[in-house]
Amino acid sequence: MEKKLPTRQENFSEWYNQLVLRAELADYAPVRGCMVVRPYGWALWENIQKALDDRFKATGHVNAAFPLLIPQSFMTKEKEHVEGFSPELAVVTHGGGEKLEEPLVVRPTSETIIGTMYAKWIQSYRDLPVLINQWANVVRWEMRTKLFLRTLEFYWQEGHTAHATEQEALEETERMLQVYADFARTEGAVPVIPGRKSESEKFAGAVNTYSIEAMMGDTKALQSGTSHFLGQNFAKAFDIKFLDEGNQLQYCWTTSWGVSTRFIGAIIMTHGDDQGLVLPPRLAPIQVVIVPIYRKNEEKSAVMEAVSAVQAQLKDLRVKVDEREGLTPGFKFNDWELKGVPLRIEIGPKDVQNGTVALSRRDIPGRDGKSFLPMAGLDSAVPALLQTIQDNLLAKATAFRDSHIFEVTDYESFKQVVAEQGWAYAWWSDDRENEARIKEETKATLRIYASDPNLGEGVCFYSGRKTNQKAYFARSY
Amino acid sequence: MEKKLPTRQENFSEWYNQLVLRAELADYAPVRGCMVVRPYGWALWENIQKALDDRFKATGHVNAAFPLLIPQSFMTKEKEHVEGFSPELAVVTHGGGEKLEEPLVVRPTSETIIGTMYAKWIQSYRDLPVLINQWANVVRWEMRTKLFLRTLEFYWQEGHTAHATEQEALEETERMLQVYADFARTEGAVPVIPGRKSESEKFAGAVNTYSIEAMMGDTKALQSGTSHFLGQNFAKAFDIKFLDEGNQLQYCWTTSWGVSTRFIGAIIMTHGDDQGLVLPPRLAPIQVVIVPIYRKNEEKSAVMEAVSAVQAQLKDLRVKVDEREGLTPGFKFNDWELKGVPLRIEIGPKDVQNGTVALSRRDIPGRDGKSFLPMAGLDSAVPALLQTIQDNLLAKATAFRDSHIFEVTDYESFKQVVAEQGWAYAWWSDDRENEARIKEETKATLRIYASDPNLGEGVCFYSGRKTNQKAYFARSY
Repeated sequence: MEKKLPTRQENFSEWYNQLVLRAELADYAPVRGCMVVRPYGWALWENIQKALDDRFKATGHVNAAFPLLIPQSFMTKEKEHVEGFSPELAVVTHGGGEKLEEPLVVRPTSETIIGTMYAKWIQSYRDLPVLINQWANVVRWEMRTKLFLRTLEFYWQEGHTAHATEQEALEETERMLQVYADFARTEGAVPVIPGRKSESEKFAGAVNTYSIEAMMGDTKALQSGTSHFLGQNFAKAFDIKFLDEGNQLQYCWTTSWGVSTRFIGAIIMTHGDDQGLVLPPRLAPIQVVIVPIYRKNEEKSAVMEAVSAVQAQLKDLRVKVDEREGLTPGFKFNDWELKGVPLRIEIGPKDVQNGTVALSRRDIPGRDGKSFLPMAGLDSAVPALLQTIQDNLLAKATAFRDSHIFEVTDYESFKQVVAEQGWAYAWWSDDRENEARIKEETKATLRIYASDPNLGEGVCFYSGRKTNQKAYFARSY
Repeated sequence: MEKKLPTRQENFSEWYNQLVLRAELADYAPVRGCMVVRPYGWALWENIQKALDDRFKATGHVNAAFPLLIPQSFMTKEKEHVEGFSPELAVVTHGGGEKLEEPLVVRPTSETIIGTMYAKWIQSYRDLPVLINQWANVVRWEMRTKLFLRTLEFYWQEGHTAHATEQEALEETERMLQVYADFARTEGAVPVIPGRKSESEKFAGAVNTYSIEAMMGDTKALQSGTSHFLGQNFAKAFDIKFLDEGNQLQYCWTTSWGVSTRFIGAIIMTHGDDQGLVLPPRLAPIQVVIVPIYRKNEEKSAVMEAVSAVQAQLKDLRVKVDEREGLTPGFKFNDWELKGVPLRIEIGPKDVQNGTVALSRRDIPGRDGKSFLPMAGLDSAVPALLQTIQDNLLAKATAFRDSHIFEVTDYESFKQVVAEQGWAYAWWSDDRENEARIKEETKATLRIYASDPNLGEGVCFYSGRKTNQKAYFARSY
């Protein structure tokens, strides 16, 4: 057996890095900053994809695929976009053995190439809205990387929509933010807070960026999905126009929104404990692992018969039977705990005699998470138990989050909160320079504004000015 | 209404190009040779993906994701591989504003990067077999491109497996070839012929390549999927070794296999007619289109009520109701015919009165494909009719294929067959130079060897030598 994981207390960052590798979610690729997503990690991502894709289709979106390679000149058409992304580009200069006339960039995001196609496809108000999503890989030349959280290449979905009116585009931006929040809570049991980002934290080229912010186990914030209202910025840069019902030529209003493999990092750092991953049942690649237990070979056939019967009852779930030979039950238990399987069922000779099974919940370690159930009726008892686990994970993460958000009214307590305790929540009067100074001094950034429209009025904790806005500040990934 | 498609007879190539654009399957991207797969084309690809992925999982494979960017030096490690792929590489020379120490290639295929990871992951016979697939985009710098058939970037799946013995790897190669053949016939109604490729047509670095070959509507062949037995070539180049049960260090035996968006081209050119696409029901994004027909507004509500009732009956199918206003039924019929929807249901006021609907089969144009059915019972009648359509498409394509394969015994008739009539099937004695000369003189290539092991013996149509092999020759895409 390898030595234990570092505890989260000892070294949260190292706990994360080792856990990702040992649980076989991902591995380092030969190119600096790139990752290989291993089968267990990819199965988790496929479940995330399915849960999101169903929501996209239910809200009227369709999928398509736009090219990986973008003419470099496209990136320069939107002023803020080029400033934001230029430092991060990977550039193809040679193809088929020859130097290219114009270099191509590997897409860091697809507003420019999709904008170009929309300009071609959209002529009339009858063509609107266009509601397209793509599942894709993108490349951003990041200097400091970490598996899933920030890698040169990552996987995501990017929705790109075009609308006839500002109002519709605003509604779409908000709709997808809420879709993300619902997905994160319902599927990932990650109690995100949705809200608007500040000017200095918004997407390069957006009018406004909204995000879902999650609190990790070390109380740092993780931006876990973003929805951008792009106004007419990209429509003007790429000439996306339509004839309205009055036969007037108008620019479209566009949005874009994305969730990436980073969300796997959110799941790991929201629920994981010192024994390893704790995966939410709705997304777990393996929801139930069955470990057959027998010492003598003559016990085996009766045990395996019971295992098959239980497996048949659970056929609608994602179930794995651990039949590996030559490993002790204890080794197997540790292994599946490391891998975060929500529920373990043990079946031994005594269980066969009694017509029961032993169940262990991953979310409640030790004795308190153990129970015994009759074999008859597992087809309804186990799904119910998985839902209980799912609900408990969300409740635990919500309680953790809420006990680590502190309302502050002065800079001294702000500094203490963001350095040691969690997130600061405070009255805030917009000021780009103050925001930059706070970041410089405390490493904390303005994560999002509170979205409650009826906050009333208060005094900015930093400037002392009157304001009607509150904001969350935290150190972040 | 736009002008009609060119007929296949007039100009098959132009028929294809225009059909892909007009049916909104794909569009040309701003970068030469790249394509945008539009929502209708991508929905078709998603159905292909699902059908293949289910088969991969049923045969024990799992999915993962390996990086897009590969150090250039990796490509040179396998001698034949580098010769085959070097001329087709797209090369990233700059990242994050700086020149890279070592250029990176955009993967044209992933044997090299996956081989590197397998060398790291595989230590013991207990780690074998490794059965991994990935769904990915790849880039090959092709000079002559055609939408779906040959584009700079395309989408595919690539399976990569590692085994302890040659026998297991050979079985895997054959298994996946048969999985592909079954997929193509059952799902695509494309009656492919599976078989081994010649030395000169095999994958760069393979010991043997097997493919499924399909006959297009112009009688040209299209290689529609490949399965490669890689022997120990890549294991030796990338040091993929394991300790066997006797504690001896051995090289693995590996395979790789792929099907790409090219298969969409196979579907278009196998089934399409002069009116447009004809999609096989099992893969069609829309299986049934319902066109409500009414002239006066007072007819509308009764018709739409019946439409809803029919739609409810067909809820397990992929159904679209064409409610577009201001378009004639005739326009709509043409539109859905162009898009290849397998079955059209018309519901008008008379149908409502009679409790019937009118159905039109896409695979049988005109009166013969029309029928009337009672509304009651459509939930079983329509799926049965779709299966009939699926079967008919396969039968038609098989009959077409078989009537365009000609057994030849001399070079004169060979030349006539491959120039005008279809595929030549002939006794063939292996000879690389003869094969090259035939290609040079007739543009026909050896597509595959016949896989019947009991052919007996005959005389090579070209060299006059005795041989126990027969082969298919054809011009191809």
